[in-house]
Amino acid sequence: MTYAALIAQARTTAALEAVAERLGWDQETMMPDGAGPQRAEEMAAMAAVLHARAVDPQVGDWLAELDEAALDDVARAQVRLMRRAHDRATRMPADLVAELARTRSMAHRAWAAARASEDVAAFLPHLARIVALKQQEAAAVAGNGPAYDALLDDYEPGATGAEVAAMFDALRPRLVALRAACLDRPAPAGLTGHFAPEAQMALAGKVAVAFGYDLTHGRIDRAVHPFSSGSGLDVRITTRTAADDPFNCLYSTIHEVGHATYEQNIDRAYLMTPVGRGVSMGVHESQSRIYENQLGRSRALTGWIFDQMRDAFGDFGVADASAFYLAVNRLRPGFIRTEADEVQYNLHVMLRFDLERALIAGDLAVGDLEAAWNDRFARDFGYAVDRPSHGLLQDVHWSEGLFGYFPTYTLGNVYAGCLHAALRADVPDLDAALAVGDTSPATHWLRDKVQRHGGLYAAREVITRAIGQEPGEGPLLDYLEAKFGAIYGV
Amino acid sequence: MTYAALIAQARTTAALEAVAERLGWDQETMMPDGAGPQRAEEMAAMAAVLHARAVDPQVGDWLAELDEAALDDVARAQVRLMRRAHDRATRMPADLVAELARTRSMAHRAWAAARASEDVAAFLPHLARIVALKQQEAAAVAGNGPAYDALLDDYEPGATGAEVAAMFDALRPRLVALRAACLDRPAPAGLTGHFAPEAQMALAGKVAVAFGYDLTHGRIDRAVHPFSSGSGLDVRITTRTAADDPFNCLYSTIHEVGHATYEQNIDRAYLMTPVGRGVSMGVHESQSRIYENQLGRSRALTGWIFDQMRDAFGDFGVADASAFYLAVNRLRPGFIRTEADEVQYNLHVMLRFDLERALIAGDLAVGDLEAAWNDRFARDFGYAVDRPSHGLLQDVHWSEGLFGYFPTYTLGNVYAGCLHAALRADVPDLDAALAVGDTSPATHWLRDKVQRHGGLYAAREVITRAIGQEPGEGPLLDYLEAKFGAIYGV
Repeated sequence: MTYAALIAQARTTAALEAVAERLGWDQETMMPDGAGPQRAEEMAAMAAVLHARAVDPQVGDWLAELDEAALDDVARAQVRLMRRAHDRATRMPADLVAELARTRSMAHRAWAAARASEDVAAFLPHLARIVALKQQEAAAVAGNGPAYDALLDDYEPGATGAEVAAMFDALRPRLVALRAACLDRPAPAGLTGHFAPEAQMALAGKVAVAFGYDLTHGRIDRAVHPFSSGSGLDVRITTRTAADDPFNCLYSTIHEVGHATYEQNIDRAYLMTPVGRGVSMGVHESQSRIYENQLGRSRALTGWIFDQMRDAFGDFGVADASAFYLAVNRLRPGFIRTEADEVQYNLHVMLRFDLERALIAGDLAVGDLEAAWNDRFARDFGYAVDRPSHGLLQDVHWSEGLFGYFPTYTLGNVYAGCLHAALRADVPDLDAALAVGDTSPATHWLRDKVQRHGGLYAAREVITRAIGQEPGEGPLLDYLEAKFGAIYGV
Repeated sequence: MTYAALIAQARTTAALEAVAERLGWDQETMMPDGAGPQRAEEMAAMAAVLHARAVDPQVGDWLAELDEAALDDVARAQVRLMRRAHDRATRMPADLVAELARTRSMAHRAWAAARASEDVAAFLPHLARIVALKQQEAAAVAGNGPAYDALLDDYEPGATGAEVAAMFDALRPRLVALRAACLDRPAPAGLTGHFAPEAQMALAGKVAVAFGYDLTHGRIDRAVHPFSSGSGLDVRITTRTAADDPFNCLYSTIHEVGHATYEQNIDRAYLMTPVGRGVSMGVHESQSRIYENQLGRSRALTGWIFDQMRDAFGDFGVADASAFYLAVNRLRPGFIRTEADEVQYNLHVMLRFDLERALIAGDLAVGDLEAAWNDRFARDFGYAVDRPSHGLLQDVHWSEGLFGYFPTYTLGNVYAGCLHAALRADVPDLDAALAVGDTSPATHWLRDKVQRHGGLYAAREVITRAIGQEPGEGPLLDYLEAKFGAIYGV
């Protein structure tokens, strides 16, 4: 009966977390402009309710008295996740939680102002406080391991900084070389013209459904930043439209559909329980990236997308599917992570990973961060950062204390590379289906191998089981070199 | 400091109530079809959180030790509302709360099925259980007074069944006579044609703003049933569109704007506190009704609305503002409360009030309800109910246990009559403003006299202060007889 009590408690917590998440969605999509201050109180009240549940001593007592040997595999996975959440919450001193919330809020505002005025010096004192508090958090929740690992573990349970660093160190030289070689060649033509936002949204809906997104348990709205929100029976996505760039809407949508279908496809038996959510940020990102890149930017599927674009916009100045494939996959020099292509994206991420790991370890002072960023950027990209908003002020993450989050983006790409190689081996004729807009051989494979399990297995274990071996950076590199080598003739 | 602790607790409760209310809005407007079962768990989890707060013994202790003499008027009003909520919640036995929730849920489904199949007998056993449970609730929360009053008090604090009955008994004969006289005359022409739903929504937005609805703290969406939702900085309304009946959208919108501006216009100093909400259902309804009827269906404002209709729909077959005024205000025989006009609406309500009061008092058996309904309907309306869905199965209220709710509709109309008379006396040239679509002399008067106070005064006291005397049914009757006497020449 102790397990029944625990799972009932966890179900209610999952329901309340879903409410808080829905509130966040509302804030970005529907909320009237003037409601902000009230919404802040509402969010704070929900956070207080959830925190009280997370540290409830009754849960600790139940977890202590539980006889795990009597449980089945699913129940043991539920308990593992409950124990993890309870331990992490109870180890955090209440005053540190409050201080972090206050500091984050101030730092976020300071960052936005600093970015707008290109004023690094105005942001650094806030960043220094955030780093100090995150170091305290790491000390509170960590065992004897490195401080950074305790933060990374919040987003990618079980991962360690050393293991991620080894993988990234192997990725970097080949990506730097591939990037340089491609940018040395003439760039394919991009898109020009006006693409009506309403037609973009209609196309986004069609493509989302083609990727298996279930609109009876979801919806698509516009927001400033694309995101996926919710779990189980109610998983909503947002996208955005720019009249001169239909790829922004299209590929944001496919990316978020990857996240959303992961949540939608988790075994319904796990609905509203700890196991009923995606297992980690890295595995989540593997789904969004394989949908967006390995499938969405493939030669086969872009042929079908080209036809849909012609249906939606008429002749938009791209001659044929081959030219469209090049336009979708062209590389350009740039400074901004979120605008980067498949090849360059990971270079942006790995730069941040190394810097934030050094910051948390105390090996890099906040005062030296800008120089370190700019130096590393010049080495990897071959040109200098021209302004702070193109450099260390471009991302929101550090201002919100999200240390340990960045590497999950590239971990997701690495996992996507592994999954894609295994998928192609299992489904050799995949391209024939993709060419007519049928993603189901791929999305059903992913549902079966990864998505339906939710949090049943540990993050890395899900991937290992799916591909039949330990994941590594090799398949991603092989894929990128083959794809962009062919496009650019390098 | 006890008061500070209490008001902090109440603020968090208000924030969580706002969250639950927003969730309800989402369910009716945005939620994907398949999310229902999950949403039910989310709502139940929020209800459990709110119930635990309502019966928190700490609040009881604080309320007991508080020195009220040291408080100012606003703080005393806050404490009065907190004490009321705490007392009511703690008096309800937990098993009765659970049993009511279960029975209500089953009764609601049984009612919907019974209404669809015109099967009264299938609903009555559920209704009998609901009535028995509501009698238990009344016994638990009531002092020594009548059981019905304990239920009425939940919607209209301080009102008694006897006082309401006396008012309604005075209303009824003159309304029956006025109705019969009007229906004896030729009916004015109504609208025909097709009115594009999008144009209706655009017009609704324009009219809502003309009535002072603040869209920076609200929004308008479509839903099956029009409603207003939220308080303070985020008060949203819904409306509905029928292509052959633009009045449905138009007057639903104006009605809900009355509710919504009441919440928006409460003194911001009371934001997210017990005093920061509309004081009662009756006073709330007085605002929605005076907006909808005394202002929205006035000869002066309908002249302006006629021009807006012409702008929105072109020539829609109504010759001029006079014919439009008649079309807006025409009476027709009918069975359905929600479709009734200003004259007949209250007859529907008073019928329900008398019947439900007798049910709760034990003076009327559930088995005799249909005969009692049909008999009373024939007496007041002059023709027989032709099917149960036009009779006692038409409303959702009883299936959800909402006994004591119906009379607040007519109480609202009575209050609206009182407020309108006082408003006309204070603003003699109101029609000149209304004729050009300027409602501000009326809406500012209502804001100043009623809305801004929120729950600072008791319900009846708000009206008494606004009009300078005790409210009564006279002004409403005088207004209706004058208006419809002129229209119908009776």
